[in-house]
Amino acid sequence: MMAKPGRPPPAAAAGRSGEAMDRARLTQLHEQYRAALLDDVVPFWERHGVDRECGGFFTCLDRTGQVYGTDKPVWIMGRATWLYATLYRTVEPRPDWLALARHGYEFLTRYCFDPRGKMYFLVTRDGRPLRMRRYYFSEVFGVLALTALARATGDDLIRRRAVGLFQTLVRALRTPGVIEPKVDPRTRPLKALSPLMCLLNVADTLRQLDDAPAYERLIDECVEEIFRDFVKDEDGSVLETVGPRGERLDEPDGRTMNPGHAIECAWFILDIARRRGDAALAQRTLRIVDYALERGWDRTYGGLLYFVDVAGRPPTQLEHDLKLWWPHCEALVAVLMAWRMTGTEQYARWFERLHDYTFAHFPDPEYGEWYGYLHRDGTVSTPLKGNLWKGPFHIPRALLYCERLLAEALG
Amino acid sequence: MMAKPGRPPPAAAAGRSGEAMDRARLTQLHEQYRAALLDDVVPFWERHGVDRECGGFFTCLDRTGQVYGTDKPVWIMGRATWLYATLYRTVEPRPDWLALARHGYEFLTRYCFDPRGKMYFLVTRDGRPLRMRRYYFSEVFGVLALTALARATGDDLIRRRAVGLFQTLVRALRTPGVIEPKVDPRTRPLKALSPLMCLLNVADTLRQLDDAPAYERLIDECVEEIFRDFVKDEDGSVLETVGPRGERLDEPDGRTMNPGHAIECAWFILDIARRRGDAALAQRTLRIVDYALERGWDRTYGGLLYFVDVAGRPPTQLEHDLKLWWPHCEALVAVLMAWRMTGTEQYARWFERLHDYTFAHFPDPEYGEWYGYLHRDGTVSTPLKGNLWKGPFHIPRALLYCERLLAEALG
Repeated sequence: MMAKPGRPPPAAAAGRSGEAMDRARLTQLHEQYRAALLDDVVPFWERHGVDRECGGFFTCLDRTGQVYGTDKPVWIMGRATWLYATLYRTVEPRPDWLALARHGYEFLTRYCFDPRGKMYFLVTRDGRPLRMRRYYFSEVFGVLALTALARATGDDLIRRRAVGLFQTLVRALRTPGVIEPKVDPRTRPLKALSPLMCLLNVADTLRQLDDAPAYERLIDECVEEIFRDFVKDEDGSVLETVGPRGERLDEPDGRTMNPGHAIECAWFILDIARRRGDAALAQRTLRIVDYALERGWDRTYGGLLYFVDVAGRPPTQLEHDLKLWWPHCEALVAVLMAWRMTGTEQYARWFERLHDYTFAHFPDPEYGEWYGYLHRDGTVSTPLKGNLWKGPFHIPRALLYCERLLAEALG
Repeated sequence: MMAKPGRPPPAAAAGRSGEAMDRARLTQLHEQYRAALLDDVVPFWERHGVDRECGGFFTCLDRTGQVYGTDKPVWIMGRATWLYATLYRTVEPRPDWLALARHGYEFLTRYCFDPRGKMYFLVTRDGRPLRMRRYYFSEVFGVLALTALARATGDDLIRRRAVGLFQTLVRALRTPGVIEPKVDPRTRPLKALSPLMCLLNVADTLRQLDDAPAYERLIDECVEEIFRDFVKDEDGSVLETVGPRGERLDEPDGRTMNPGHAIECAWFILDIARRRGDAALAQRTLRIVDYALERGWDRTYGGLLYFVDVAGRPPTQLEHDLKLWWPHCEALVAVLMAWRMTGTEQYARWFERLHDYTFAHFPDPEYGEWYGYLHRDGTVSTPLKGNLWKGPFHIPRALLYCERLLAEALG
């Protein structure tokens, strides 16, 4: 699966006749996304994913919603808090959503920080520390949670906490040596795409709360570094790991592309370009969308592959060809946003194609919510609805963004 | 897939008619295993997996044997050294095998130890350190390599190095706190099966070189701890992780069984029981074989699953239902050994069944050697022949052990 440089993504194999996304179709899609969000996915987590006894949220839910593990991943404590606060602020001010956001906030602030102020990765049901990791992703979702709740409530203490946690995060991610790298940097200095993606998304979020020009500057720095060092136009790829100045590493890690990651990054930047009215940035960012679809789309079974080797060497991640829920969520948002911003027909066709695959394979009509992990051929690999990584986040976020974009398109 | 306590493994679905494993069949199998070892697998690695320029071995080989990554995993540097020294000593004293063992020894001793004497996990092609991990598995394979080479050469310096490295390993694995646990032990003290398996295997190996009663005592301790704390007769399982006194942990990690691991452990112990003529220990160990087959065998597609949840809750490892080369290798050795030791027909049938699955799915008739990673349905997931974990070890070791057991059976 080699990409030719600059080639547009393949044309839709089976598009609907006539112009894609006419008003009737948009109305239908809008209703479908709103219903999936409010009548299926959010209620599933409200019903099964709240620990009323010990606080916080259950995330290890089986197909039916039964709890199969009670340990609490801190990422998801933050993500769920973000979701309920955001639903309250942007969909409808239901008191139970605000209460759930406060419920998450209580658990986060009480149990998820170590004495130095670094956030854990995993705690027990009752909040005792299980795992600390050297990364700062718990902080990323902590900032998103605090920001969303501060916006929902106008509470200045929460706002100040969000800003403080953001500053910790920026220090950790922008100061060399704070996070001990996996690979000895004296032998092989490397840098990864994910901290940049996280920073720009978090800065763009916090900017909505705390009007300081430093956020825009940080966004610009991250965007420039991503395009300069990680996006490779010569072969149409977006790398996960490069050398300090974007050098390619000709080893499996250095040839790894995660199409879902790339396309998530793309919509983060597209959203910024849209807000700023920056057409040049949008145009530049569409290349990432194109590369991710070109590299990631499985021409045999449909759906997006999890990892690909950009030189066509054998993949080394055992899960490389699984179809995961979240890359499909990110891709739906990205192509719909791309279509809204450009009116380009090919993105409407991509939306339909991704939509068809996603809604045909991931939702569980019997017990609700979505499967997370499909085999390459689209059959279910494990029927769980949640684990330490899958919780009430990517699906409702994508449904919410798509619902809004579709509503805008309808005028 | 719930096991009933004490239930024997399911009867073979499609056994050959008449008594399994008659003399003609044994002869045929013996030839097949010998040919697979000496005409296919070992030559593949001799041809493609030796770095004549920088020393050590290439292990990241694609389907055809081409190198797709040059970083050198220390586990496999030790394993390959073990293999070539063992082939030299036990199959035929070919000078090139001895030279390859010395070639591995050179790289191991020159580049794979840090200044404190702990072994790295990964080094560059030319031996510069890339990753140190907190585990001691590099040391396990280091001891196997040094012991095999000491036995092949009679070199006393190498023997003393093997003993010294073994002592480091025992100190690390038997002294609490030397290896920092993943999970905070103040919140949740846990212990794992793998260090015990490694210790007993390494002690049994070193005993062949260094006749000290301490090895037998250590073996006994490990065996007792495995049966007391990890083997659960009440539901026919062998757990990967338990509390300090074998307590079950009702979380996904605590319900995880790795059937390949369990059956590898079983043949390590069966081999010891065989050497000691300890029929009671053998009888006890057959239960592990039975539990692994009962839990691990995929009744839909055949082959052994990689991970199962012993309570039938949803698996959380993304690779849980892949069919990996090594559990099949370990299972072939275990059931053939079980059959040889007991004459029990069901193990002969299991051998035929495992043999049929393995030889129908793993070998690559076009480019030689075996695939390592199949989807649940038996199709190839990634065509690589080697990576940081798959190298010239499990397949040739299993072929060698089976070839010997078959030769013994033939008299």
